[in-house]
Amino acid sequence: MTTLWFETALLADGWARAVRLSLAGGRIETVVVGADPTADDQRGGVALPGLPNLHSHAFQRAMAGLTEARGPTADSFWSWRELMYRFVGRLEPDDIEAIAALAFMEMLETGFTRVGEFHYLHHDRDGRAYANPAEMGERIAAAAAESGIGLTLLPVFYAHAGFGEAPPTDGQRRFVTDADGYARLLEASRAAVAGLPDAVVGAAPHSLRAVTRSELAAVSGGAGPVHIHIAEQLREVDDCLAWSGARPVDWLMDNAAVDARWCLVHATHMTADETARLARSGAVAGLCPITEANLGDGLFPAAAFLDAGGAIGVGSDSNVRIDAAEELRLLEYGQRLSARARNVLAGGAGASTGAALYRRSLAGGAQALGQPTGLSEGAPADLVTLDAGHPDLAGRTGDAILDGYVFAGGSRLVKDVWRAGRKVVEDGRLYARDRIVARYRLTLERLLSA
Amino acid sequence: MTTLWFETALLADGWARAVRLSLAGGRIETVVVGADPTADDQRGGVALPGLPNLHSHAFQRAMAGLTEARGPTADSFWSWRELMYRFVGRLEPDDIEAIAALAFMEMLETGFTRVGEFHYLHHDRDGRAYANPAEMGERIAAAAAESGIGLTLLPVFYAHAGFGEAPPTDGQRRFVTDADGYARLLEASRAAVAGLPDAVVGAAPHSLRAVTRSELAAVSGGAGPVHIHIAEQLREVDDCLAWSGARPVDWLMDNAAVDARWCLVHATHMTADETARLARSGAVAGLCPITEANLGDGLFPAAAFLDAGGAIGVGSDSNVRIDAAEELRLLEYGQRLSARARNVLAGGAGASTGAALYRRSLAGGAQALGQPTGLSEGAPADLVTLDAGHPDLAGRTGDAILDGYVFAGGSRLVKDVWRAGRKVVEDGRLYARDRIVARYRLTLERLLSA
Repeated sequence: MTTLWFETALLADGWARAVRLSLAGGRIETVVVGADPTADDQRGGVALPGLPNLHSHAFQRAMAGLTEARGPTADSFWSWRELMYRFVGRLEPDDIEAIAALAFMEMLETGFTRVGEFHYLHHDRDGRAYANPAEMGERIAAAAAESGIGLTLLPVFYAHAGFGEAPPTDGQRRFVTDADGYARLLEASRAAVAGLPDAVVGAAPHSLRAVTRSELAAVSGGAGPVHIHIAEQLREVDDCLAWSGARPVDWLMDNAAVDARWCLVHATHMTADETARLARSGAVAGLCPITEANLGDGLFPAAAFLDAGGAIGVGSDSNVRIDAAEELRLLEYGQRLSARARNVLAGGAGASTGAALYRRSLAGGAQALGQPTGLSEGAPADLVTLDAGHPDLAGRTGDAILDGYVFAGGSRLVKDVWRAGRKVVEDGRLYARDRIVARYRLTLERLLSA
Repeated sequence: MTTLWFETALLADGWARAVRLSLAGGRIETVVVGADPTADDQRGGVALPGLPNLHSHAFQRAMAGLTEARGPTADSFWSWRELMYRFVGRLEPDDIEAIAALAFMEMLETGFTRVGEFHYLHHDRDGRAYANPAEMGERIAAAAAESGIGLTLLPVFYAHAGFGEAPPTDGQRRFVTDADGYARLLEASRAAVAGLPDAVVGAAPHSLRAVTRSELAAVSGGAGPVHIHIAEQLREVDDCLAWSGARPVDWLMDNAAVDARWCLVHATHMTADETARLARSGAVAGLCPITEANLGDGLFPAAAFLDAGGAIGVGSDSNVRIDAAEELRLLEYGQRLSARARNVLAGGAGASTGAALYRRSLAGGAQALGQPTGLSEGAPADLVTLDAGHPDLAGRTGDAILDGYVFAGGSRLVKDVWRAGRKVVEDGRLYARDRIVARYRLTLERLLSA
C-alpha cells in the first residue's frame, strides 16, 4: 500500500488541506482530509488530478519545428498536411514507438496523465496491411507502457479523401481501411492494450471528409468513446456545404446520434446555432489551442459554448509543443484577444479563470477518454504535484494556485507525477527520460538524413 | 581573457560553424570562424545573441497570476489597471529591488540579456518625493547588478490622468512629476546606473494621456531612446479622437519628431495609413504579445507593418510570464489565427519564421534599447546558448534551430547565458537564483498578507 500526504489538494468538491491518499491496484483507495502525515507517507506540496490530453497524433511530435519555414507560396493547413503526409511516408514501426515514447514522456512531464491517441497510421510504407492489423497500435501501447501514461487508443477509420466518397490519395495510403478491416483493427487494438492498466479503446471516424453516412453509423455504433475531427478549416466548411447544403456540425447533428460518448475535435467554425446544438448534445468539444494557432485554424466560440452548457477538454494534437498549462492559457488568451476583455472563461463574478479552465478540462477530458479522473476513491491514481516553493505559488491558496500555474509559472511548476499509482516523474523528469531521449535522437537523425 | 568555442553560432551575417569568441571588458573582442577548440576554451553547442526585452514594468511580476479571477463585472484592461494601482500603493523600495531581481533573473534564464525598464514608480506611498529622486531607480539598478542583466532605464514622465490635462488620480500619486522634477529624475537616474556595465538611460513620456504636446517635446528632446505607450486599447483611441480629432499614432506623427530613436510600445490599434506611417518613421514598434493577450488588447497589424519595412522588438511588459521564445511564438500565432494562414511573418518563400522573428527582434530591440547586440566584435558579450542535445534540435542546422527553439522547445532549450562577458546562467539557473528566490518569497508573502 502506497500512501501520499499533501499540504493541499484539489478534490472533487474543492480544495482541502492536509490530505492523505492511499493507493492500491493503480487506483485511489481512500481520501482523508485533515490527516497528520505519518512516517510512511510520501509528502508533497500541491496535488492536482492529472489533466487528460484528449487528442494526440504522437508521430507528429517528430515534425515539431520542421514546418515553420515558408513554402513556395502562402502556407496554410493544407500545405502543412502535404509535408505531414511526406513525413508519414518514411516511418517504420520502430520509429513510431520511439517518437510516441518521447511525446508521452513530455506529456507526463508537463502535466498530462492520460492521452487520447487518435491513431491513423495503420499500414506499411507501401500501404499494405501488416500481418497484425494493430502492428502500429502495439507500438503506441508499448510507448505508453514505457512512459507510464494512461492510454485511450482511438483507431481511425479513414476511407475517402473528400466529401462524396472521393478516392483516397497516395499520401493517405497508410491510413485507409474498409468496414471489415476496421473491425479487425478494433479487435487487434483491444488485444494490443490489454496489458496496460485502465486502457480504453474507442472509435474514431477521421472526419466527415473521410467517411460516408453509413460508415459513420457503423464505426460509431459501439459502446466506447467516439472521436471525430470537424470544422477545423473554412475550406472543410465550404466543401461540406457544397456537398450537402449543410455545415459540418449541423450535418453531423442531423445524421448521427451525437451524445455524451462523442468528442468533436476542433469544431472551430460554427454558427451560433451549431454552437448551441453541440452544447446541448452533451458531446465534448476537443480543443487544441496550440495546434489550432500553429495551423492557423481560427478561434473556437468558447464563451458562447460554455454559456450554453457545453463540455470542453484540451488536446496537444500535432504535438508541436507539449504543455498542459500552455494549452489552457492559449485557450483563454485567444478568447481575450477576440473579445478584447479579460477573464472571459472564468464563468462568473469572483471566479478564477485558471480554476475554471482546469476543472472544465478535467471533466471534459475524462468524459472523452472514457476513464474518470480526480482525487476521489476509485479513480485511477493519476496526480500532478506542483512545486509549492516556486515563486509563482508564494502566498497562494485555493484557486489562486491554478491561476499561478496556468498564467504565470506553467509547466515549470510541475514537480512529481503519479500515474496509475506509480511515481513516474520526479522533479520534472520522467524516470525513463535518458533512454527515451537517446532513442528518439537516433530515430530523428536517421529520419532527417534520409 | 575569456575564450568561448561553439559548434555553431548565429553571427551578424548568418550561421557559422566552429566559432571562437574572445571576450574582454564585457565585450566581444574577436570572432573567428572555423577555429579548432583549445584547452582553455569554454565550449558550447549553439550560441545566439541574447534577445533584448524592450519593455518591462518589473514590479508587476509580483502580481503574476493575481488578477486572473473575474471581478464583480466584466473584466478589462481598465479593471486590471485598478488592481495594479492598488498593488502599487503597498510597495516599498526594498520590495521593488526584490521583485525586480526575480524578474530580471527569469529574463536571463529564458533568453533575454538586456531589459528596457519603463520605470514609473518614483515617489513614496503617500506620493511624496524621496530625498533621492532616483531612490526607486537605484533599486532597479541594484536588481540589474545582482542578476547581471543589461539595463536600459527609462524613467517615466507622467503628469496627467487623461487627454486634455486631466489631473492625476490618487492611484497615480507615486508616478507624477513636472518638468523640473523630471530633469532631476533623469540626472539621478544616470547616477544610479553609473556602476553598471553598458547601461543606458532614455526618456519615457508615459502615453499621450499623460503628457501635453509641449511636455512631450521637452521630455523627448534628449539624445537617447524615447519610449511611449500608444494605442494599446480602443478606449484610448476613442478618447484621443474625441480630444484631438486624430487617432493616437496619427496624432503622435503629426506632433512629434518620431524617428529611429523612438519606440512605440503596443501600437495595437492602427489604420492601414498609420501602420505605413509608423513603418516609414524608422521607429520601433514595441510588441508585448503575452501581455497584450493577457490584457485583451488586440492584435498588432504585424504583416502589413513588416511589409512596409517596419522595425519590431518584443517586451515582457507586465511580466505575468517571462519567456523570450514564447513572446516570439505568440506574436506569430496571433497573426496566424487572424489571417488563418501559416508562417505569416517569415518574410519570403523558403524563409524560416523562427529566424525571421528572432533576427527582427534582435535588431529592433537593440535599436530601441540603445546598445548593439549580436555576436560581432565590439558588441556587449551577451550570449544565450541552447542545449544542442535536446530532442528539439536533433538533426537541425542553421535557421531550423530557431524554428525548433521558438515553436517547439522554447525556454526549455536555454542552457547557459553570458552577459557582459560573464556566465550568469548555467544549465538554466542564474548563479544567484537561490538568494533571489528566497528574498522574493519573503517579500511576496508579506505583501499578500498585508
